[in-house]
Amino acid sequence: MINLQTILNFPIINEGDIISDIIMDCIKYNKITLQNNDILCVASKIVSIAESRILSLESIIPSPLAYEIHKKVPRKDPRIIQQIINETGAADGSRVEVSDNYIGAWLPNGMRLTSAGIDKFSEDKIILLPINPDESAKNIGEKILNKLGINVAVIITDSDGRIEKRGATQIAIGIYGLDPLRTTSFNGKIIEETICDMFAASAGILMGQRGNNKPVVIISGYEFDFNQSSCINSALAKNKD
Amino acid sequence: MINLQTILNFPIINEGDIISDIIMDCIKYNKITLQNNDILCVASKIVSIAESRILSLESIIPSPLAYEIHKKVPRKDPRIIQQIINETGAADGSRVEVSDNYIGAWLPNGMRLTSAGIDKFSEDKIILLPINPDESAKNIGEKILNKLGINVAVIITDSDGRIEKRGATQIAIGIYGLDPLRTTSFNGKIIEETICDMFAASAGILMGQRGNNKPVVIISGYEFDFNQSSCINSALAKNKD
Repeated sequence: MINLQTILNFPIINEGDIISDIIMDCIKYNKITLQNNDILCVASKIVSIAESRILSLESIIPSPLAYEIHKKVPRKDPRIIQQIINETGAADGSRVEVSDNYIGAWLPNGMRLTSAGIDKFSEDKIILLPINPDESAKNIGEKILNKLGINVAVIITDSDGRIEKRGATQIAIGIYGLDPLRTTSFNGKIIEETICDMFAASAGILMGQRGNNKPVVIISGYEFDFNQSSCINSALAKNKD
Repeated sequence: MINLQTILNFPIINEGDIISDIIMDCIKYNKITLQNNDILCVASKIVSIAESRILSLESIIPSPLAYEIHKKVPRKDPRIIQQIINETGAADGSRVEVSDNYIGAWLPNGMRLTSAGIDKFSEDKIILLPINPDESAKNIGEKILNKLGINVAVIITDSDGRIEKRGATQIAIGIYGLDPLRTTSFNGKIIEETICDMFAASAGILMGQRGNNKPVVIISGYEFDFNQSSCINSALAKNKD
């Protein structure tokens, strides 16, 4: 039996906030008892805000390439397109894929996300992914361990979709404490499952989208070997290098 | 709070078995109490077997196109490649995408699946998707309603991955009772979430892969409006027609 629960009355996060402290306060307030090997799924957005990953659109000057892509995807501000290109680390746009009304971006670590994971924060500001989501996850997990003496795994989640389906699900972009892949063997064949994305998606059921204010989901009852050195990279296919 | 539980001691399914009856027997045996608006996730594989969707490889004669694709993806039997082409409904291969070591297939209804959802059943047999997964889901849901008087939603799930990640997650390929999309609005903008895939992925945590023999997961505690006319098509982007 696996249980999913969210934390109610989560405050609005501001730049500089310490996410782990706020989670621990809210858990106490909600009378939730964390246990060893619980898995915390945390929406990347609140991590990004806390880490001050907010950028003013005024500060971005679009290149000719950004304007060219803007002609194909007119709904996207050319300055946001420029930042998508910047996030991929390839100024020539070679790690950006434009199809229909959609921009896919391959990040330097091998992650692939719609619009490089960039969201609008306000009319004139955007919000970028955490610089190192594995580190963000580790920080939260280690601070909870230090203060409560409990080993929780942490998954940083972000919204993303599939090309054939409408709508978005949640996927994992950073991880701590839990191997991102589950490996089993059957008839001598090794089978890999993207267990990190399964947890992220299950958390998405309760998180919902913007304005819902349920950015943290606690998953209990899943047995796994705690692994302090886990990272998302071991689940990345890296087939676009 | 959402709960996920699997049905233990599920029997091996054979051609002609009535999945709904077997689920009801197992639920009784496991002393699980189904409730209105529970969601049953059912692995497509057992549905396919029950529906006799098993094909002998001997019966398939590969076209020159299948042999051409086989040169790019040598690990795939040319006869299986032929059946992947067949499943897309486009003999010219226009709905098949070959990249690296991988064949993506767009099915006639707008669904996209690795290898058209075809799996090996044995050395000389393959297993195809249910002909109409929405109908399969509806059959299970309606039979449970008729026998137990309980309205459960049913999601038929299949394994599939993301291009940038190793391993597979579970996605929804058929649905009954529950809208496959969740729609909310924020700041006047309509936001769609692929809630069917979130449930499928969450079920995948307990289902595991082949040989695990946990093909049914019961999800409880999610509030939704029961919709007897839901179908997977309303979640499909249909951008490849």
